[in-house]
Amino acid sequence: MPKLRISWKEYGNRLTKLRTHMEEEKFDAYLVTSGVSIFYFSHFYHMVTERPAALLVEPDGKPKFLGPLLEADHLKLQTPLIGDCYTYLDYPGEKHPMNRFVDWLGELGYGKARIGTDNPAGAGGTMGYVGPKLSDLMPDAELVADDQYLWDIKLLKSKEEIDLIKESCKWGNLAHTYLQEYTRPGLYDMEVRLLATLDATSAMRKTLGSEYQSIKGRAVSAGFRGQVGWKSAIPHSIDLNRPIKDGDVLVTGAGADIGGYGSELERTMIVGQPTAKMEKMFKVMCRAQEAAADALKPGNTCADVDRASNKVIKDAGYWGLVKHHTGHGLGLLGHEPPYLDQGNDQPLEPGMVVSIEPGIYELGYAGFRHSDTLAVTEDGCEWLTYYPRDIESLTIL
Amino acid sequence: MPKLRISWKEYGNRLTKLRTHMEEEKFDAYLVTSGVSIFYFSHFYHMVTERPAALLVEPDGKPKFLGPLLEADHLKLQTPLIGDCYTYLDYPGEKHPMNRFVDWLGELGYGKARIGTDNPAGAGGTMGYVGPKLSDLMPDAELVADDQYLWDIKLLKSKEEIDLIKESCKWGNLAHTYLQEYTRPGLYDMEVRLLATLDATSAMRKTLGSEYQSIKGRAVSAGFRGQVGWKSAIPHSIDLNRPIKDGDVLVTGAGADIGGYGSELERTMIVGQPTAKMEKMFKVMCRAQEAAADALKPGNTCADVDRASNKVIKDAGYWGLVKHHTGHGLGLLGHEPPYLDQGNDQPLEPGMVVSIEPGIYELGYAGFRHSDTLAVTEDGCEWLTYYPRDIESLTIL
Repeated sequence: MPKLRISWKEYGNRLTKLRTHMEEEKFDAYLVTSGVSIFYFSHFYHMVTERPAALLVEPDGKPKFLGPLLEADHLKLQTPLIGDCYTYLDYPGEKHPMNRFVDWLGELGYGKARIGTDNPAGAGGTMGYVGPKLSDLMPDAELVADDQYLWDIKLLKSKEEIDLIKESCKWGNLAHTYLQEYTRPGLYDMEVRLLATLDATSAMRKTLGSEYQSIKGRAVSAGFRGQVGWKSAIPHSIDLNRPIKDGDVLVTGAGADIGGYGSELERTMIVGQPTAKMEKMFKVMCRAQEAAADALKPGNTCADVDRASNKVIKDAGYWGLVKHHTGHGLGLLGHEPPYLDQGNDQPLEPGMVVSIEPGIYELGYAGFRHSDTLAVTEDGCEWLTYYPRDIESLTIL
Repeated sequence: MPKLRISWKEYGNRLTKLRTHMEEEKFDAYLVTSGVSIFYFSHFYHMVTERPAALLVEPDGKPKFLGPLLEADHLKLQTPLIGDCYTYLDYPGEKHPMNRFVDWLGELGYGKARIGTDNPAGAGGTMGYVGPKLSDLMPDAELVADDQYLWDIKLLKSKEEIDLIKESCKWGNLAHTYLQEYTRPGLYDMEVRLLATLDATSAMRKTLGSEYQSIKGRAVSAGFRGQVGWKSAIPHSIDLNRPIKDGDVLVTGAGADIGGYGSELERTMIVGQPTAKMEKMFKVMCRAQEAAADALKPGNTCADVDRASNKVIKDAGYWGLVKHHTGHGLGLLGHEPPYLDQGNDQPLEPGMVVSIEPGIYELGYAGFRHSDTLAVTEDGCEWLTYYPRDIESLTIL
């Protein structure tokens, strides 16, 4: 049976690391407010709404939860790693939740403390939330913006994390296989998405059994997001209002949630015999992706990877068709640092997990992009996704 | 053919309203950074990532777009309402996007201006974004936090908006009908979700044809979000690691995207003959919902609605099982102001559209919650969702 979540021990190590950081920065406590960072330290994932929620990490003991009542039972079922819960009935409440945060932090002795946090305001602007800033309500305390650290700590993936991402790649591969099998002219891309997602979900559930639980509510999926025909030239397309037809270039996407971790698999597929122009653009894109992977190794920087890919595209005369950089980190989120961008001089290090996905997009015609998930290793990189990349395998006849 | 988006004229009226507000507040310009507010003024919807994006509204002319290159073609296809685009290749870039924002705003003459905005920092903490605050980079300008206004302007729905929400209710009703039809012991809730969503998507696409385009990428759906059996007692459950079985109480959800607008339909269903206890709890929940609807009228406040619902639950002896307030506004977002909360003394006004969804949750046993979408009218309210609410109709034998 593959491991389907991060071990309690590794969660403990993360907390220890944060506490070392707290000591170094002379933080008396730490307030984590982003949903994904709360999960990172606690294995508790929740639907982020207008209701403020935070994890309070103190120098010792289990982290405490400050947040809406409706999450209190939920978190106890999901994790043994959180201690006391301080809850309010709902937002905005007779007393604003941020004022309750102030009371609770005061009771716990942090009214005049130095507190590290990803958000000194205490809560963001999600779904209609408005309210006073925690930092304004606690003039005697010092709330220190430390969001960079919460990205840094997630930057290098452990073996456990990479194993979850590999398991995610496996199920993404199945979903994509169904997606390709079911793609045919006359169907809306959303119909193919749902057919493939249904069969992959069913197979994954039955294979992994009751050990498996989706953290984010979508076990496994594959789809097109409207990147069909001329709209494949829109990298962040959302929907297309016609069915798939013969001659369409398609750009896909597939992935699966394993213990909260994801992977990214995208392919350019062609419905019907590719034209010479399609073949040419497809192959340049593939070569750009390979050049990026060749450059993905310790000793190089993130910018080097982007430049290696861009060079292939420039040499082929397609630089005007580039709309984004070569890739981005991923793991708990679909996009995370590091960004494989010509402006990012960050050195590559073993344990970074990134997408490699250069694209070329001709408006009114088509777009070409594969995306694979790769891990930086001691002496190069490892491709974690393994779906066929060649045009013959990706032609739907 | 039903209208499937807000008319260009109404988008124009929104801009006019914002400009009146700008005059009143002596704002030289306005910078809208949240994805949903950008859409509200422009009919341009995009996937929000680490890449900062904003709409610049000036005293006259079309709003300008500041953001990533990959959205430039996209927005021109989606809307005629946006003028010039100022783009950067990607994040973080050789020059940070926030520094580019400063350059562009300077070129346009706003380097020393008073600018209203939903976010004086210029961008949030989404997906690994880090960067300097726009307000710090423009010491000679005044960036005024004005997020409350961008919620207020959306508070009262126009006839056009309510018509889109009604159309959404219709397709949510179809998806929920399939969901109920396909629910049976032995299936995972995600399988039933995908079956119902597939058939509803297919029927909706074929009915509405090429006039229809999903704004947010999910046309219509229905599901359970893991609120199955004992986990129906977790109001914001996410997933359950076993199939549906006989005797389960289920809490569902359905909705559809019409021109970016949604609706909310949730039902408590019971697999097999309900026990006397289930029947009792179900009926108290229904009565609480009806009491809330009775109180939903001009002259009352949001708090009055919550109190009316809570009174029914308290009188039945179930107050200890309440985990959240009675409902919330909705429209472009799943949750928006106004919140039907005992702490919210905001008066009800015609045009508010809200969910009414009191719930009672017994940990280890089951949860009971219906949610309907209602509009406040001149003399009361109108139920926009219309799926059967009685236990007989919602029992699956």
